[in-house]
Amino acid sequence: MTPDEFRHYGHKLIDWIADYRESLASRPVMARVEPGEVIAALPAAPPATPEPFDNVLADLEEILLPGLTLWQHPRFFGYFPANASLSSVLGDLLSTGLGVLGLNWQASPALTELESVVCDWLRGMVGLSDGWSGVIQDTASTANLIAILCARERATQFSLAGGGLQAEPCALTVYTSAQSHSSVEKAALLAGFGRANVCIVPHDDAFAMRPDALEELVRADIAAGRMPCAVVATTGTTASTALDPVGSIAQVAGRYKLWFHIDAAMAGSAMILPECRWMWEGIEGADSMVLNPHKWLGAAFDCSVYYVRDPEHLVRVMSTSPSYLRTAADGQVRNYRDWGIALGRRFRALKLWCLIRSEGVAGLQVRLRRDIENARWLAEQITARENWRVVAPVPLQTVCVRHEPKGLSGESLDKHTRAWADRVNRSGEAYLTPAILGGQWMVRVSVGAEKTERADVEALWAVMRQEAEG
Amino acid sequence: MTPDEFRHYGHKLIDWIADYRESLASRPVMARVEPGEVIAALPAAPPATPEPFDNVLADLEEILLPGLTLWQHPRFFGYFPANASLSSVLGDLLSTGLGVLGLNWQASPALTELESVVCDWLRGMVGLSDGWSGVIQDTASTANLIAILCARERATQFSLAGGGLQAEPCALTVYTSAQSHSSVEKAALLAGFGRANVCIVPHDDAFAMRPDALEELVRADIAAGRMPCAVVATTGTTASTALDPVGSIAQVAGRYKLWFHIDAAMAGSAMILPECRWMWEGIEGADSMVLNPHKWLGAAFDCSVYYVRDPEHLVRVMSTSPSYLRTAADGQVRNYRDWGIALGRRFRALKLWCLIRSEGVAGLQVRLRRDIENARWLAEQITARENWRVVAPVPLQTVCVRHEPKGLSGESLDKHTRAWADRVNRSGEAYLTPAILGGQWMVRVSVGAEKTERADVEALWAVMRQEAEG
Repeated sequence: MTPDEFRHYGHKLIDWIADYRESLASRPVMARVEPGEVIAALPAAPPATPEPFDNVLADLEEILLPGLTLWQHPRFFGYFPANASLSSVLGDLLSTGLGVLGLNWQASPALTELESVVCDWLRGMVGLSDGWSGVIQDTASTANLIAILCARERATQFSLAGGGLQAEPCALTVYTSAQSHSSVEKAALLAGFGRANVCIVPHDDAFAMRPDALEELVRADIAAGRMPCAVVATTGTTASTALDPVGSIAQVAGRYKLWFHIDAAMAGSAMILPECRWMWEGIEGADSMVLNPHKWLGAAFDCSVYYVRDPEHLVRVMSTSPSYLRTAADGQVRNYRDWGIALGRRFRALKLWCLIRSEGVAGLQVRLRRDIENARWLAEQITARENWRVVAPVPLQTVCVRHEPKGLSGESLDKHTRAWADRVNRSGEAYLTPAILGGQWMVRVSVGAEKTERADVEALWAVMRQEAEG
Repeated sequence: MTPDEFRHYGHKLIDWIADYRESLASRPVMARVEPGEVIAALPAAPPATPEPFDNVLADLEEILLPGLTLWQHPRFFGYFPANASLSSVLGDLLSTGLGVLGLNWQASPALTELESVVCDWLRGMVGLSDGWSGVIQDTASTANLIAILCARERATQFSLAGGGLQAEPCALTVYTSAQSHSSVEKAALLAGFGRANVCIVPHDDAFAMRPDALEELVRADIAAGRMPCAVVATTGTTASTALDPVGSIAQVAGRYKLWFHIDAAMAGSAMILPECRWMWEGIEGADSMVLNPHKWLGAAFDCSVYYVRDPEHLVRVMSTSPSYLRTAADGQVRNYRDWGIALGRRFRALKLWCLIRSEGVAGLQVRLRRDIENARWLAEQITARENWRVVAPVPLQTVCVRHEPKGLSGESLDKHTRAWADRVNRSGEAYLTPAILGGQWMVRVSVGAEKTERADVEALWAVMRQEAEG
């Protein structure tokens, strides 16, 4: 494609995206295709000769779009808000258009330095001290894995430089609660720990980890000759945005020299609101932390920021220095390749930079406060209505709800819950994700898509009542 | 940013990118900034209120652009070609603009299904059988790690489900050559193996792994009570595009039940040329393989395709199934979250789809053949000139070169080599990456930027002679 063709089709595509965003409210939220339907509509072999880009745009409209669940839709209440604010879309377009890579500082100095700048901006925005250093990862799954690897290597005094995990005499243990994200257990398993060494710490009625239970488990493990290695707490769990008590866990971690990692992937964005910072009070006592600007905050996916207290430790765990990557600048600069798994790196800082500059910190705060307010309003409506129940605290923007008609419980109630959520989703009017909490299915309403206004939450509540009450 | 503002600034940015691509040849290739210069030019704190996007565009021009090394420049010969073809830039813009995520099939069916389609297209394009299943990862570093994890879990019969790596009685060993990419050793260390369990297999004079030496090492390890686990071979090494003998290594791997992974990150793209496929003859005997369309082929970074023979094994190693990700479709569809580390997934298939459709397979073949021909031409010029030497075979598009004036050897020769490469880079006329090969520094000329024509290679050769010969 020549630059002139790029100009022509680029303008067309920008207009297409603008139209798509403007028309979202009138489309069904959930994709309405059967498994295999998109594959069947596409040719099995690639074209031998060039096709006009108009063909791509036609297929986009006819084949792909009906097969997409619309995360940017104002009535998308599933999973978590994954806002791709239009300013950050432009930042990402700039990254791709520039086509530069950050293998090391010299390979594109501005890529590395802007990343340092925006990580520092964000650090300040969420009220962290300057004792933290940040780097952009793809997702919190990766950041959680890196944290566990750093913990493993600190506990074993760099086993990777010698005989590896197999040479360690005591079984290393990772602690987390049953409410932590699936990627935490996955990280421990990938890091070689084995499921038998992932210890699930009990939580309280608000689904928050119990620090007293953590300490008991740690002491018992030590007495049994095991080696406690890391604890992973969550600020804003996936199911219910529960808040593990960071300060008390930090004390236990400090006492037993556990690596303390905080997964604030979802709720971290809320810390740009000073009134929310009590939720991770004590965070300065942690070793590492991740928050995802690609969720609620509005940076287009993928943009997950990982903060550490001791970047030298991180670099020692992750670094490689083959000859073809060495440059004269090495001693004076950050080489972010040594802060993560991937060597090649996109210019991801641009999308966060464009977002923050275009919206301003105050603009982002207004939007997040709107969402918290909308979630509270919905929780009030639910609580006030007969047979409906909010089943977990609502500190942020997620409301966990159940419709509990008389006579239903256990499996029959689960069946009812999943059925009405499915009817809401199939209606196309809104999208919700059911999940298990405390052994019973419930429905999560995750408020916070950029375009979601009070009227959208009202519309959701109407369709919920209709599909559940019949 | 409203859709109308997005329209306005989006058109501006598209034009900016087109202008930038057209003007590349007139700009210096390497960034001309000192460490810290970009950071110093940017404000230390984020703006409280929204800024007009024009400010961003002004900073882009004045602060960022001078701080970038231009990977898309026609005289970029460093590292490897990382072509972001303009058609794939549009594909990636579409991904970001749509703003949909693939957590599971239902979260956006077309995202998953188009990924299957383009992975199958590419499989056919490089001549692989339909016994392979593909998935898009961010980089080969990640794919290599996933391969090592799959190897670890096959050898230990799923130690992650029990006591983990620590519970294994025999030390697991990974084999690779000193020419493999740094991410291979890194993968083994992150997977918990320890450097003592990464066994470096000797290579021959062409920098290719010696299968006889591999077999000897494996037998010795077995005799010593160790457990050989995996061998990683490379098709197109980073330093010199050396070709490990895939067929013979496959035989050894089969004999001793090693997991056989092939890192074809760079050279895999060349396999769209039937005349190149002898380079990985025997690949059907491997367990896993990675190739990077984000290198030479032209898909904008990041787009690394990982192929496996046994996707069920991969899923068993990587899967998680928390309640909030379960859907009715689970049994019938691919959930690519279980094919890698990250749970959240961009719609990366779009950039590869747009590239292949806009260029056509034949168009891509013409470009790659041009680059191979240009590299051969340069190698001939170097060989014909006094005191210059091509120091490794040139099967593809990378020429490893040394200028060896009389009287220089060892350290003095290394000093000369690095100095003239540095002078070339600082001239702004071209960009090269020096590296160590066979214990001595040499200069890699990696031909293959999309815009590199014969005249650019001629210009490079002139500046090389000038800066080296003085």
